[in-house]
Amino acid sequence: MSSGMRAETDAIVIGAGPVGLFAVFELGMLRLKCHVVDALPAIGGQLTALYPEKPIYDIPGFPKIVATELVDRLAEQAAPFHPKFHLEASVETLARLPDGRWEVELSDGRVLIAPVVVIAAGAGAFGPNRPPLDGLAAFEGKSVFYLVQKREAFRGKRVVIAGGGDSAVDWAISLSEVAEKIMVVHRRPKFRAAPESEAKLKALADSGRIDLVVPYQLDGLEGSDGRLEAVRVATLDGQTKSLPADILLPFFGLASQLGPIAKWGLEMDGSQITVDPASLSTNLKGVFAVGDVAGYKGKLKLILQGFSEAAMAAQAAHAIARPDQSLHFEHSTTTGVPVA
Amino acid sequence: MSSGMRAETDAIVIGAGPVGLFAVFELGMLRLKCHVVDALPAIGGQLTALYPEKPIYDIPGFPKIVATELVDRLAEQAAPFHPKFHLEASVETLARLPDGRWEVELSDGRVLIAPVVVIAAGAGAFGPNRPPLDGLAAFEGKSVFYLVQKREAFRGKRVVIAGGGDSAVDWAISLSEVAEKIMVVHRRPKFRAAPESEAKLKALADSGRIDLVVPYQLDGLEGSDGRLEAVRVATLDGQTKSLPADILLPFFGLASQLGPIAKWGLEMDGSQITVDPASLSTNLKGVFAVGDVAGYKGKLKLILQGFSEAAMAAQAAHAIARPDQSLHFEHSTTTGVPVA
Repeated sequence: MSSGMRAETDAIVIGAGPVGLFAVFELGMLRLKCHVVDALPAIGGQLTALYPEKPIYDIPGFPKIVATELVDRLAEQAAPFHPKFHLEASVETLARLPDGRWEVELSDGRVLIAPVVVIAAGAGAFGPNRPPLDGLAAFEGKSVFYLVQKREAFRGKRVVIAGGGDSAVDWAISLSEVAEKIMVVHRRPKFRAAPESEAKLKALADSGRIDLVVPYQLDGLEGSDGRLEAVRVATLDGQTKSLPADILLPFFGLASQLGPIAKWGLEMDGSQITVDPASLSTNLKGVFAVGDVAGYKGKLKLILQGFSEAAMAAQAAHAIARPDQSLHFEHSTTTGVPVA
Repeated sequence: MSSGMRAETDAIVIGAGPVGLFAVFELGMLRLKCHVVDALPAIGGQLTALYPEKPIYDIPGFPKIVATELVDRLAEQAAPFHPKFHLEASVETLARLPDGRWEVELSDGRVLIAPVVVIAAGAGAFGPNRPPLDGLAAFEGKSVFYLVQKREAFRGKRVVIAGGGDSAVDWAISLSEVAEKIMVVHRRPKFRAAPESEAKLKALADSGRIDLVVPYQLDGLEGSDGRLEAVRVATLDGQTKSLPADILLPFFGLASQLGPIAKWGLEMDGSQITVDPASLSTNLKGVFAVGDVAGYKGKLKLILQGFSEAAMAAQAAHAIARPDQSLHFEHSTTTGVPVA
């Protein structure tokens, strides 16, 4: 492993959503430097990924602010502290080193080391909802895809599209122009797509360009070595049939999952990491959780509460990262932003 | 008492500082209406009174914001809920009514009644620092004043001014034009006033228009029925002398004090009201404390933490004010600001 793949810092912030960004600011005010990891290709978390254009009304001091503007402003506030972002990377393992620091391995092979880890993972990393099919993993990336990057890759193929929303309907229409055969599997006759798209789908079905396989759901995959030969589908009462196919595209939406974090030995309550509300400490010393992922009595999943938690966690993190320095608590009006 | 002096509402918010204003917003989002009481003549609390022009760096989403702008924005955010402000009024008594609601009497005689009281009093109401002199209260408002409203009131009088800051120096200079005699008592030879003012003071002292009584401090008042005859002063080693005088003007700065709130039977820890951090409830059911005045483990006196507390307190207050309505918690992105 090259040395560029390994970085030491004061704090590893997991999640570049609004609370993660504000944690960078609060840690920075205490002169703690951060690396920030996020699975998404851009900062902002759910605000960027789920509702970029949505106005928010409960951020103090903003009678109304559009989600992406809040992200921009939080990024600007954190910028003087020069956080290092690792985007499109998820966290894999957490291990305690002999010197007491934490080592976090990322999905891209990078390794980060710091005395403090702040988990600001929100509802977790976003990824596609996977259908619960035996042996699915062996086909993923070979015959089963959750997004379409190049339409031409499906030219001449027999393609099963599963799902009833906009993605399923729109890709069925689009790929019908290049694929040998398009089969749309949906468990209801009714689709949840834009009316115009649904009308177009029905027209293509009527003309024989698309097969609507409804009401059916996915039941199994047939084939070997990642090469799909058929997709098995079943009715709700268990009648199955086999659809000869080269490709399966499941479009069941995005979901967020804590993923490997849930296996780090953190005390959890459902999908939330249990923290001491006075310090946001988890049961692992030096590991903190803030924002929606943190749970305690009275917790509200509000961005503004995450902001407050980030400030408290930074204070407690300072004691871990700088055990030899006592912290003279000051308001930012007293100190201003230190020149980093 | 006329009916206009008595008002019933959902919540009485004590303190119109940033956290009190945001509490109005959070209560309003839950459709609870507020009356807001503040001792100052304007909203904004310390931000307005102590550092209106100071930039603040740690309000999330604002890399830098001047204190008064934050106040303006918080007021705008609360405005859709039409809070009723009672300014230049302080709270006096808190009493529980037979129906379980709280009755708060104000210094202006007004009475407010609500199921919920939210104390967002910061460091307390601002008032003058009083010198620790026996029998002081009997002279206050008659011979002892903490501010000068009409210079003419001191024409021909023998006036003792105590203090070494700008107020003491500036009023000594100004009143030397009308008073029979001005004596400035300060415990050090050096004053803490603008250099130009101090030079003017010294010049007036040299010309005999002002007596500098330094280094002395106040030791006692002589007179009866509120009529001052002399001010006794003492050196640090206890030598006293008596200054014949009609008026004493102590200028020892402003301080904040909880005042009557400290006598309401609230559980306190020093100057902070002890609250349950999960709900911001005090030991009195229906009475909440938020912001700097609220104390619990891990508490930081940060505006942003007060904002989070206001949100939590509003949730808990709703259960008290609307016991028959269950609260379906929603993010403001879901609901927007209800039309009030």
